[in-house]
Order: sequence, then structure tokens, then C-alpha cells
Amino acid sequence: MDIQHYMKQLGEQARAASRLMAKADTNTKNQALRNIASLIRHHEKALLAANQQDLDAAKANGMEAAMLDRLALSEKSVATMAEGLEQIASLPDPIGEMSNFKYRPSGIQIGQMRVPLGVIGIIYEARPNVTVDAAGLCIKSGNACILRGGSEAIHCNQALAKLVHQGLQQAGLPQAAVLVVETTDRAAVGELITMKQYVDVIVPRGGKGLIERISSDARIPVIKHLDGNCHIYVDDEADLDKALRILENAKTQRLGTCNTAESLLVARSIAPTALPKLAEMLISKGVEIRGCDETRAIVPQAKSATEEDYYTEYLDAIISCKVVSGLDQAIAHINQYSSQHTEAIVTENYTKARQFLREVDSSSVMVNASTRFADGFEYGFGAEIGISTDKLHARGPVGLDGLTSLKYIVLGDGHVRA
Amino acid sequence: MDIQHYMKQLGEQARAASRLMAKADTNTKNQALRNIASLIRHHEKALLAANQQDLDAAKANGMEAAMLDRLALSEKSVATMAEGLEQIASLPDPIGEMSNFKYRPSGIQIGQMRVPLGVIGIIYEARPNVTVDAAGLCIKSGNACILRGGSEAIHCNQALAKLVHQGLQQAGLPQAAVLVVETTDRAAVGELITMKQYVDVIVPRGGKGLIERISSDARIPVIKHLDGNCHIYVDDEADLDKALRILENAKTQRLGTCNTAESLLVARSIAPTALPKLAEMLISKGVEIRGCDETRAIVPQAKSATEEDYYTEYLDAIISCKVVSGLDQAIAHINQYSSQHTEAIVTENYTKARQFLREVDSSSVMVNASTRFADGFEYGFGAEIGISTDKLHARGPVGLDGLTSLKYIVLGDGHVRA
Repeated sequence: MDIQHYMKQLGEQARAASRLMAKADTNTKNQALRNIASLIRHHEKALLAANQQDLDAAKANGMEAAMLDRLALSEKSVATMAEGLEQIASLPDPIGEMSNFKYRPSGIQIGQMRVPLGVIGIIYEARPNVTVDAAGLCIKSGNACILRGGSEAIHCNQALAKLVHQGLQQAGLPQAAVLVVETTDRAAVGELITMKQYVDVIVPRGGKGLIERISSDARIPVIKHLDGNCHIYVDDEADLDKALRILENAKTQRLGTCNTAESLLVARSIAPTALPKLAEMLISKGVEIRGCDETRAIVPQAKSATEEDYYTEYLDAIISCKVVSGLDQAIAHINQYSSQHTEAIVTENYTKARQFLREVDSSSVMVNASTRFADGFEYGFGAEIGISTDKLHARGPVGLDGLTSLKYIVLGDGHVRA
Repeated sequence: MDIQHYMKQLGEQARAASRLMAKADTNTKNQALRNIASLIRHHEKALLAANQQDLDAAKANGMEAAMLDRLALSEKSVATMAEGLEQIASLPDPIGEMSNFKYRPSGIQIGQMRVPLGVIGIIYEARPNVTVDAAGLCIKSGNACILRGGSEAIHCNQALAKLVHQGLQQAGLPQAAVLVVETTDRAAVGELITMKQYVDVIVPRGGKGLIERISSDARIPVIKHLDGNCHIYVDDEADLDKALRILENAKTQRLGTCNTAESLLVARSIAPTALPKLAEMLISKGVEIRGCDETRAIVPQAKSATEEDYYTEYLDAIISCKVVSGLDQAIAHINQYSSQHTEAIVTENYTKARQFLREVDSSSVMVNASTRFADGFEYGFGAEIGISTDKLHARGPVGLDGLTSLKYIVLGDGHVRA
């Protein structure tokens, strides 16, 4: 069977399943999630064995250590997958939620109802836990999904798919609500992102290269998460203790996450006093500073930053640094160089905090808090399918609501338009 | 100057203006709208003269009557444009609206702020009033826009653009917040819908062909409005008086609008009694019925409907008709044939009304009300830039909110992530 035909079949099955998922009741969906969680716990050994098969093949192919780490499951990570599903089961059901009902002068009553998007195509790399997280979010939000994981994880993903199908079936839901692409042929991705009639939205998860490639080739809307070049602006009215605490957390708690700070802006009037302390903390944590001339005059250890540095998401123990004249220049710098992910100001000044919140054009804007908070769990969504750096539809961390849409509901009593 | 270079310049100007518009305060934006309204009233004669130039050229080029009608301005339509702007000025400002602030266990407080999308590209055909409506909505929502009207209306659009610029300038806002493409070269559209770095969303307004072409060529998200193949389902527990009133309004009030009913479904058990009355009303209004075999057995005047008929938006005095076994078949038929615009059920049964609302997958779903209500003004948005048949971002009538996005706001007091 050729790939095009195979993917078309998956699409048809997913579309049919999505209609049944859209009307599935809350209890049934939660039961399916709990079934899958308990099947995953029960089949821990088989999952670890399938994962070992993938790991052996990956090692034989010379996969690098960081990637192997992402591919590897452990008893703990299997338990975490199961818990994740139970957590999703315990969230409120977004589907069917009705809101904003108002009477209009015409006599009709109008409001909105939250509904599933339909079929979600998810494309990701090595991590097998994405298979379970994504399936869980799609089931709860009444969608069907087609999952295309990395070819390195194919055995583990197939083993997980089997358990997901069993859990869906036990709850009386269609197995095709979660379809795992069972070929490692890359042409499958090309089909998935262009079959408009079967897929409503694509969520790619992975490196910037993958996401840019998919966005540029897709004929279906893409919820994309490009880079996180996050900024911390230390205002001249900052509380320096807060600035130190926030910068330490934002830059050094985890180097490789998208909400890690990559650039530090400091107001000129406090730079001579604040920068040495901030730099000392960074350097003590092994972070390299790449700064403008003013930064380097104050911090001799700082290297020289290029224009390119200010655009860079390092995901590493490096931070760019710039001395700015004040709030206006900080905002202008951020709106030019940032990837519009997450930015924070440290200030005690109410008016400047308000201006920063209003004028910084990023998906999360913070006052006196670490950029590391930009995360679906921290925001209280219970789960997240990714973080969107787009402005349309979903912006910022995407939870269950991001996988839904709102339709208008009109209630009348024989009303007609005048 | 070549088109590519020209459009790039417009894009740069619009992007710069959008940053200023995003922080413009409510009063300034409203003042600009009121300035433009009064300039339009004041220059009524000049506008009508420019419009006459367009009409003369169009007639010389053999434009058909319906199109000339759309192109023509009158004293009344000039006044309506001005009133429309004043109405937009009187709406609440969506920008900066903050909502849903909640404390999280970590101590941060998280909520959302409504922000502009940035630069909106609007592509439309002959109607010059779209120039003013679109400009007004974009100004109020803090966006910049690039307007590409039909080449038939170029003189009138340029005259309007001059007034819009004057009104913006008088209020201290950038003229480039509203840019009118001043070339009739079609290559300008190709540039507009692909210059990602300058344009955030495209709103095409016009025939299905235009919109499909733009959607397929665009490299920027498109808020699209395809066809409106709207259904009325008359349930076996319908109040027949309401059904007659609703069908008459939905089908015959205006034949050519997107929310006009194009297809009638009738429950089998009441078809012998209800269909003759419904058909009699339709026929008395000059509407041709194209029905299934069961319809034709009951209504001898009905012609035979093909499969294609059930997919068709007639925009004419024709309606397709089908007898269905009941609610489930009605919903299945609608979800298969409809364009997902607007559908209504006529029923007195509470349980069936709820099922219809939940399971029909269209942008507006109604109980005992005419599909003609699917409209931004009727829904209380005060204005509308179009009706979206998409599911992502904006679905249904698109008012000011559809031209905005939500960013997350995090307020802390030195909080860091554990």
C-alpha cells in the first residue's frame, strides 16, 4: 500500500472517530483515560522492553547521548505517564461548556458553546511520553488525533498505541480516536500536513528546524512553537534582591527549556551598582556573559555581544546582556529581538510595570516573576500540548482549551429577523 | 518602482504604525474615528464624484448591473459609512481588557490581556464601504491594516483613504495605520498574502472563488468566509406556525446573503401534513423546490434534487428539500452537506433541541430562530469584518474581538519557580 493511500485511510478513520468523540460524554472520556493509565501501569515491563528495542537500535545507529536520554523510559517515567492521564481525567471537561448568554433587542438569546476542533495531527521527535500526553489531551477535548512520533521510538509508540486502543475500546470509544502512524517513511509527514479534508490543525513539537519546515509546507493551520528568546529587564527602580533571585531562577534553574532567560537588559542609571552583582551571580553559576560595550566596561569578564547574539536562544550557559537608557528602550529592544515568548520586568514602579505589560508584544509578560513560570502546569491548565508563539487562535501555553473552538448558540421562540 | 518593492514598503510602514496603534489610548482612537466620520460627511460631493469616475469606467468596461449596484455610492450610503464609524467609536475598547486573574499555589497571579493582532491585510471587491468599515474596525482594535480593494473602485478608495489619513493625523495617530494599495496590478495581492514579516492575518471578502484562491496561495493565516449552505430542520415536534415563519424569513427575506437558508429537512412522520404548507408558502414566494423522492410524492411541484443540490448555496430563489427519518439523520445530513455556517432546528422538544445544539458542527446553531440572525450586528458586536467558516481563531461573525489576541500576564513579587 502506498503512503498516500495509507495516510488517506488514517484520515478517514480519524474523521469518523472525531464525530463520535465530539459527542462522547464526560464520564466515558474520563473512564477511557483511567483505563489507559491502568493498562500502562500493568504493562510497564512490556513498555520498557519495547523501549529497550528502540534504544538498542538508536545506539547501533550512533544516536548521541542527549537524544538517547530523551528516548529512554524508566519505571518512574512510565508511572508519570499514567499519573498524567489521571490528572487529565480529573480536569473539568471543556466540551459543551456554554457561556456569555445574553438577550438581544430582537428577542433572541445568544451565547457560545465550546466544541472540539476535530482531528489534530501531532508531529514530534523522540520522546515516547508525548504519545500518551497528546492522546490524553485529545481524548479529553473530544478530538481525534493522528500521532507521528520519531522513527527512533517506533516500537515503544506502537506498544503504547495498543494500550491506548484497548483503553478506548473498554470505555466504548472508537479506537481510531488515537491513530499512531505505523511507518517511519518521511513521506507520511508530507501527507499528514496537507490532507485538509481530514486534519483540522497540526501541532509540531521539536526543534526550530522541524517546526519551520512543517509550517512552510503545511496546507493546514499549524499551532507552532518556535524559539524562546526570553528577556529580563532590570529597571532602575528594581528591588535588587528580587532581580538576583529572578535572574538566577530564570537563567540557571534549567538551561535548555524554552522559558529560560536568554537576554538581560539593565537600566543605565543602576548598571554600575546592579550589573556587578548580577554578573557575579551568573558567573558563579558558570554562565558566560556576552554584552555591549557598556556591559563590558562594568563587567570585565563579559565577552563582546554581536547583533546576532541578541537574536539567539542559546539553550546553554550563555546570556546576552545590554545596558539600556530605560523602559522605552528596553521595550523597543524586546519587541525587535525577542521571539515573543516570555519577558519579565523587575521593578517596584507601578506605572512602569503597567507600561511594560501593555507594550511588550509577547505571549507571556511578567512583573517581578521568573520567566520559568511560562508553562501550562504553572498556569493551572493541568496539562499542556505545547507553547504557541503564534498570535492567532492559541497564544502561550496551550492546554485543553487550545484544542477547542467556540460556536455560537442562538435560542429563540419562533423569532425572525426584522 | 516594482510591485514587490512597493508592497514591502507598505508592509514596513504598516508594521511601524501597528506598534503605535497598539499603545494608542481609547480616546485617541475614538477621536480618529469621529474625525473620519465628519470628514466623510463634509466631503460627500467629492466622494460621489470619485465614485462617478469609477462607475463611468466600469460601465465603459461593460460591468454587469449587479456589480455596478455594489460599486455605487449614494448620499444615503455615504451617511451610513459615517454613522458606522461613530458606532464603532461608541463600542467599548477591546484592547487592554484584562480578565481571569487567579492566584496559583506558587504565589503568582495569572490572567490575560487582550491585544491587537498587528497588521491585517484585507482583500475585497467592488464595495467602497468596506474600505471605511475595515479601516474603522482596525483602528478601534489597535491594528494597522493594508487594504486592497477592487480595481473598479480605485478612485473612490483613494479619495476615502485621503480622508482616513487626515482623520488619523488630526488625532495624532500614524497615517500608515490604514494603507490603501494604490495600484490595480494583481501582483500586489500575491505579495500581500505572502509577506509574513509584515502581515499577521489576511481577511478576504468576496466570492468563494476569490477566497479559495487566496487561501490556497497565502503563506499567512487567513480568516475565511466560504459559502453559507444553511439548513432548517423541521422536527416532528415542531410548532408548525413557527416553522412557517422561520422558513419564510430564513429563505425569502433576502435571497443573496450567506445566512439565507438553502436546504430544508423535514421529519418523516410530519412530512405529509407539514410539507404541503411549507411548500405552499415557498411556492407563493416564487421559490423553486428541489426535493428527494419522498418530497416529490408529497409536493408534486417539486423538481428532483441531485446529490450536488444538497451541497449547493443557491443565493437564489431555489431550496433543496429532504425528508429524513428524524433528528439523528438530520444531524448526519447537515454534518455531511453543510458548509458549517448556520443551521436551525424547529422543535418544542427540549431533549432534541439540546442534542441538535451539541452535535451540529457549524459556526452558529439555532433553536426556533431564523438563520438570518447569524450576523455581527444581530449578535451585538456593533460591527463585523466578516463571518468565519473556519474553526481556528475566529468562528462565526467576526467583530472587534476577532481582530485581537490574548496574551498572558503574570504578576509576582519576586516569585521564582520551585
